[in-house]
Amino acid sequence: MHTDLVAALDIGGTKIAGGLVDGRGRILARAQRPTPARENGDTVMGAVEAVLGELTASPLWARVGALGIGSAGPVDASAGTVSPVNVPGWRDYPLVRRVREATGGLPVELIGDGVAITAAEHWQGAARGHDNALCMVVSTGVGGGLVLNGRLHPGPTGNAGHIGHISVDLDGDPCPCGARGCVERIASGPNIARRALDNGWLPGPDGDTSAAAVAAAARAGDKVAVASFERAAQALAAGIAATATLVEIDIAVIGGGVGKAGEVLLAPLRRALGDYATLSFVQRLTVTPAQMGTDAGLVGAAAAALTRRADAATV
Amino acid sequence: MHTDLVAALDIGGTKIAGGLVDGRGRILARAQRPTPARENGDTVMGAVEAVLGELTASPLWARVGALGIGSAGPVDASAGTVSPVNVPGWRDYPLVRRVREATGGLPVELIGDGVAITAAEHWQGAARGHDNALCMVVSTGVGGGLVLNGRLHPGPTGNAGHIGHISVDLDGDPCPCGARGCVERIASGPNIARRALDNGWLPGPDGDTSAAAVAAAARAGDKVAVASFERAAQALAAGIAATATLVEIDIAVIGGGVGKAGEVLLAPLRRALGDYATLSFVQRLTVTPAQMGTDAGLVGAAAAALTRRADAATV
Repeated sequence: MHTDLVAALDIGGTKIAGGLVDGRGRILARAQRPTPARENGDTVMGAVEAVLGELTASPLWARVGALGIGSAGPVDASAGTVSPVNVPGWRDYPLVRRVREATGGLPVELIGDGVAITAAEHWQGAARGHDNALCMVVSTGVGGGLVLNGRLHPGPTGNAGHIGHISVDLDGDPCPCGARGCVERIASGPNIARRALDNGWLPGPDGDTSAAAVAAAARAGDKVAVASFERAAQALAAGIAATATLVEIDIAVIGGGVGKAGEVLLAPLRRALGDYATLSFVQRLTVTPAQMGTDAGLVGAAAAALTRRADAATV
Repeated sequence: MHTDLVAALDIGGTKIAGGLVDGRGRILARAQRPTPARENGDTVMGAVEAVLGELTASPLWARVGALGIGSAGPVDASAGTVSPVNVPGWRDYPLVRRVREATGGLPVELIGDGVAITAAEHWQGAARGHDNALCMVVSTGVGGGLVLNGRLHPGPTGNAGHIGHISVDLDGDPCPCGARGCVERIASGPNIARRALDNGWLPGPDGDTSAAAVAAAARAGDKVAVASFERAAQALAAGIAATATLVEIDIAVIGGGVGKAGEVLLAPLRRALGDYATLSFVQRLTVTPAQMGTDAGLVGAAAAALTRRADAATV
């Protein structure tokens, strides 16, 4: 039987999505369940098994040769376990073994969700054709992943590219991760909103205090709102420049809810990048919005499974 | 003829060293000239050619199959050019072409000096057996290089691992590179000494105001001297933690003159690493002194040439 498809799982704190994906990244079958994030580990696994049950029932299942998982982190790809911050019932949870058991022994590839998004943008989106790229999600948190030398760089545990938790302000505000002045502590959506409120920004009559509302105010010229996005842009620029200086990337792709703020974020980000990306070999670095939509996690997990299969075939 | 040796050049602002190196990293022949760093480009190249002339005159030369260059940066491996900060006569200087011409068309591999040191530590020194490592030189400047997935990661232009110029203090003091709060701006030898003097440290009767003198004072319990090393250690820790969080390394190797300060630097560095390397997948990161001596640059340039030959043979 020719196995030309892969299965993919995208596991987040809100939903568990599954799909059967072909070699061109098209999703030919789908299944989805809400994540019972506050329940015990077996209940969460039950939701994953329900998604897998729908997929294995598909007449296309016989064509599936491998399965990729992109999961909220931290993950440990070397151990096959996950410990998603927002799913307390899973700590060092043996997800790879459980998924393999539920699928009759299929080869399983596990990566973090930031790495999965990156695989998708590199395969089908804004980083296509770039051999060295950083892809980021700027949202409730700040995540990311790396492409180096034309290949995904998940790192030994599948967590590489965690740009949200590098410190760009070593004496700065404490971050929930335990460090200080992390990119996420300055540039995530909730921190953009908090900083605007702290500095006197007042929400509109609808009471919306989200980063999207701050972005709307910034677009309308509110100086405090503009300044909060400029500070986020400065932290993102320092983090992106650090990444480029360390590993030589030529493009940074920005996605996620805050990324959708558009030029309110991207214009000061490009300016600030000029301040921090100063060495000759990082000056050509460009910043561009993400192109993949809500399927990025699924498509990226599929890409990781396909790459693993291709590598195995050439060994 | 069996070509089991490689030639190596280590080009710095003070000296140009050359050697013939075997597959086990032993230097079988040597040549050296002072770098005429203030002269024009052709004069500097004349010194390189004098070194190469000695090497090509060796009876071992017939066994040389490739040549590696580790050069003060920035370099551009993709263009084959170098622009060392301390050698103003060389700007986008076509070093690879000139060396190839001087050696009868030998294949030439160019990398930055931080990358060369890293290749040496990975091959023969403190990073041996580690598939993911950061090697640093903390001295007049702060340089470095990366090993990822068991292989040197020079990046497309040969400059990757430039940890000295990532910002860990985005509002900090201006750095000569144009950015602010770079690791080098806080942790280099001259900055350790400057900060101690600014905060009231007084040198001994010999008037020595070097970082080595500050280290001696710190060992004797001088609080200002201790604090200056602690601040350097904090910046190094933030930079090392950022690197581990981005690419997943499990060891950081510290060499260079300031690295030789020993526990005055390493003890606070290990403590500070606990403050910044917080995510589960970076907590096992260790810091260790470099093992390679003054031949590290030569041995590393040889390693790069040997790796390139091995890659070419498997294509």
